[in-house]
Amino acid sequence: MRREETIMGPTIVKLTARDIRMPTSESKAGSDAMHVDPDYSAAYVVLETDDGISGHGMTFTLGRGNEVCVAAIRALEPLVLGASLESIVEDMAGFWRRLSGESQLRWIGPEKGAIHLATAAIVNAVWDLRARVERKPVWKLVADLPPERFVDCIDFRYMSDALTRDEALAILRARASGRAEREMEMRAQGYPAYITSAGWMGYPDELVRKLCREALAAGWTRFKIKVGRDSDENVRRAALVREEIGQRASLMMDANQAWDVGEAIELMRPLAKFNPTWIEEPTSPDDILGHAAIRRAVSPIGVATGEHGANRVIFKQLMQAEAIDFCQLDNCRLGGLNEVMAVLLLAAKFGVPVCPHAGGVGLCEYAQHVSLIDYICVSGRLDGRMTEFADHLHEHFVDPVHVSGGRYMVPAAPGFSIEMKRESLDDYEFPAGARWRRG
Amino acid sequence: MRREETIMGPTIVKLTARDIRMPTSESKAGSDAMHVDPDYSAAYVVLETDDGISGHGMTFTLGRGNEVCVAAIRALEPLVLGASLESIVEDMAGFWRRLSGESQLRWIGPEKGAIHLATAAIVNAVWDLRARVERKPVWKLVADLPPERFVDCIDFRYMSDALTRDEALAILRARASGRAEREMEMRAQGYPAYITSAGWMGYPDELVRKLCREALAAGWTRFKIKVGRDSDENVRRAALVREEIGQRASLMMDANQAWDVGEAIELMRPLAKFNPTWIEEPTSPDDILGHAAIRRAVSPIGVATGEHGANRVIFKQLMQAEAIDFCQLDNCRLGGLNEVMAVLLLAAKFGVPVCPHAGGVGLCEYAQHVSLIDYICVSGRLDGRMTEFADHLHEHFVDPVHVSGGRYMVPAAPGFSIEMKRESLDDYEFPAGARWRRG
Repeated sequence: MRREETIMGPTIVKLTARDIRMPTSESKAGSDAMHVDPDYSAAYVVLETDDGISGHGMTFTLGRGNEVCVAAIRALEPLVLGASLESIVEDMAGFWRRLSGESQLRWIGPEKGAIHLATAAIVNAVWDLRARVERKPVWKLVADLPPERFVDCIDFRYMSDALTRDEALAILRARASGRAEREMEMRAQGYPAYITSAGWMGYPDELVRKLCREALAAGWTRFKIKVGRDSDENVRRAALVREEIGQRASLMMDANQAWDVGEAIELMRPLAKFNPTWIEEPTSPDDILGHAAIRRAVSPIGVATGEHGANRVIFKQLMQAEAIDFCQLDNCRLGGLNEVMAVLLLAAKFGVPVCPHAGGVGLCEYAQHVSLIDYICVSGRLDGRMTEFADHLHEHFVDPVHVSGGRYMVPAAPGFSIEMKRESLDDYEFPAGARWRRG
Repeated sequence: MRREETIMGPTIVKLTARDIRMPTSESKAGSDAMHVDPDYSAAYVVLETDDGISGHGMTFTLGRGNEVCVAAIRALEPLVLGASLESIVEDMAGFWRRLSGESQLRWIGPEKGAIHLATAAIVNAVWDLRARVERKPVWKLVADLPPERFVDCIDFRYMSDALTRDEALAILRARASGRAEREMEMRAQGYPAYITSAGWMGYPDELVRKLCREALAAGWTRFKIKVGRDSDENVRRAALVREEIGQRASLMMDANQAWDVGEAIELMRPLAKFNPTWIEEPTSPDDILGHAAIRRAVSPIGVATGEHGANRVIFKQLMQAEAIDFCQLDNCRLGGLNEVMAVLLLAAKFGVPVCPHAGGVGLCEYAQHVSLIDYICVSGRLDGRMTEFADHLHEHFVDPVHVSGGRYMVPAAPGFSIEMKRESLDDYEFPAGARWRRG
């Protein structure tokens, strides 16, 4: 350890990793073509400093496998224990690369899968910690960074053929002038959102109708439904939802990777008449060329993907190949906020709107910060942008999202909004928590 | 469970997963530009049946993180326990998809990272089990499959825009006639190989010279060295090795993902005069478009990658984009032999030679089977093909590889050659084995 790390406080002295699972499969909430029975779960991290401050972070999973992410968090633990917050903040990109590029651990990624999900939990806990120390919500902490300090958070490795540090700086500097106005606008109006929780695959028709009506009444104008391999069923459900929400509302469709490239093109044909804004995850999330082929074929329907976009290299190519109209990055899938910031800059350079993936448990809490950073610092635009929202499990958070009239209201509390209530953590800990013991 | 699974024996009744690590970092064996201190490790699986047969499999890692793969194997365990071997063999593709597409576990991949490495360990243990029951080495078991049964092992999801089941069948049928002759040829002469273990990054010059001379004396004519970010050092080491091996020997170079796209092009320029057959892993393994750009720029030097090629979708695109000259698939990185068979067929269709990644611990033992399957059943060709070899850790295997005159001799014992000796497993188990307890 460097000498200054021993004299700069606070220092991270403890990491706790917990396996938290919600039994959402019982209600089919979250169900789609590939994930028929998700139990929304969090591999949850608390970092504690020697002067008593805590930073919270989590990564999201669907239940089984959450323990694998917890094991991966524990494997990364030695890389943060003993580090001073100052030393991390001084070289955020270096800190990030120390985790994502650890010489033995990178083999089980690299920068993908369980180890990268785990990296996100720790990295985001560090951001939460830093924001609490500076007494700002994370979005505001980042919005206040000078452009040089913003790019200092980013590991540009593997990006330089698409975005250099200088280009990133130029983008941020070009946005610097309107930052204060955009921040005020967001504080007054909130960030636009769309709602997913009316259209889960496993929900019966009457429930879908009821949820659409309730959402409309609450001010929602943008809706997403799940589609699958049964073309007639897709058409039937799309018609049903269009009937409820009307022609002026936006309708997005999500295939959750269910299709091959040719199938995607084929199955979208009869859905075009419902005027979908996008088809999301039409095929494998790794298939950059496949998404490009689908995009060419289904235009003017947009193509969206990103919740399984493993890292900045995948997003770089999705943009280079002109494969997507909407970038749905995820703050857990990517290795935490540092890599999210990298992809926001890539998207700004290539002119692709960012519509962060959310839902699950905790993802909405994270995503609101990401969209605010994008608007205030990076893209400076709202056209084609909206953040996903699902109305589940927010009651477990100390500082939950607040949506109103189809918009995310700006979070005000210091941190990343991701701290869960102590009783929720205890009740839903797997397998020992009360909720799981009573089975 | 289906009824027939209860009456068909043998049935898998037990899975043991062990964390086996070799302290190779002490000698710098295996060191390269990104992995400076690997401890070659195996997340090791034993499947046991109710009639007393065992199947062995493993996935390879670099030490830390091996426990994460063990946790992932345990997460997959319920998907194999209680299954009869007959029911698995009857629908090999279905079995494979049940593991790789499990509705909750797939979130922490999908088909990549720790969960996919774990899938490989179990899937390959099933192949080992099946081969022992049929009393054949795995390569021979597969070589004897009729084309229909071969393609029945493959999950074609996400491949149909590049390779359909019918096209795969046509490839295999076209190769059917010469199979017996190629098998005889292999039994007589063995499969061509190249040697990596002379050129590790961390080895001092004199050791590299000595190992080159010893390898030449043993009949090796194909050599690989590691290159990195220091251009002068790359040139110096390449000159040193060329001096030892002469101009007629093949020389391959391996950057282990150290470079950005532009750097790769730049750093290969002064190395061209050493006439390398390929530059391996010049950049991020996820960067299909980057590899294509590098390939266009460094021609006639070939581009090779694959040991971190996460799944068939990545390989499909590497071929569609004409990004590689050599396909270095890995039997652990891909989710086991079923997906390897898929990529062999893709490579045959696109005319890309397969040169499997090996080295580490156990990878040579696996790779010899893959190359034999490729030659006998799929490509029917040897031009541009060679299997990697590194001279480490074979002493821990019950049926280790046998190389002679720079070729892999055909394995004869039933199974996948991957069973480790009981005393090795006990001594190197982490952290409780004798080798780790004495520090």
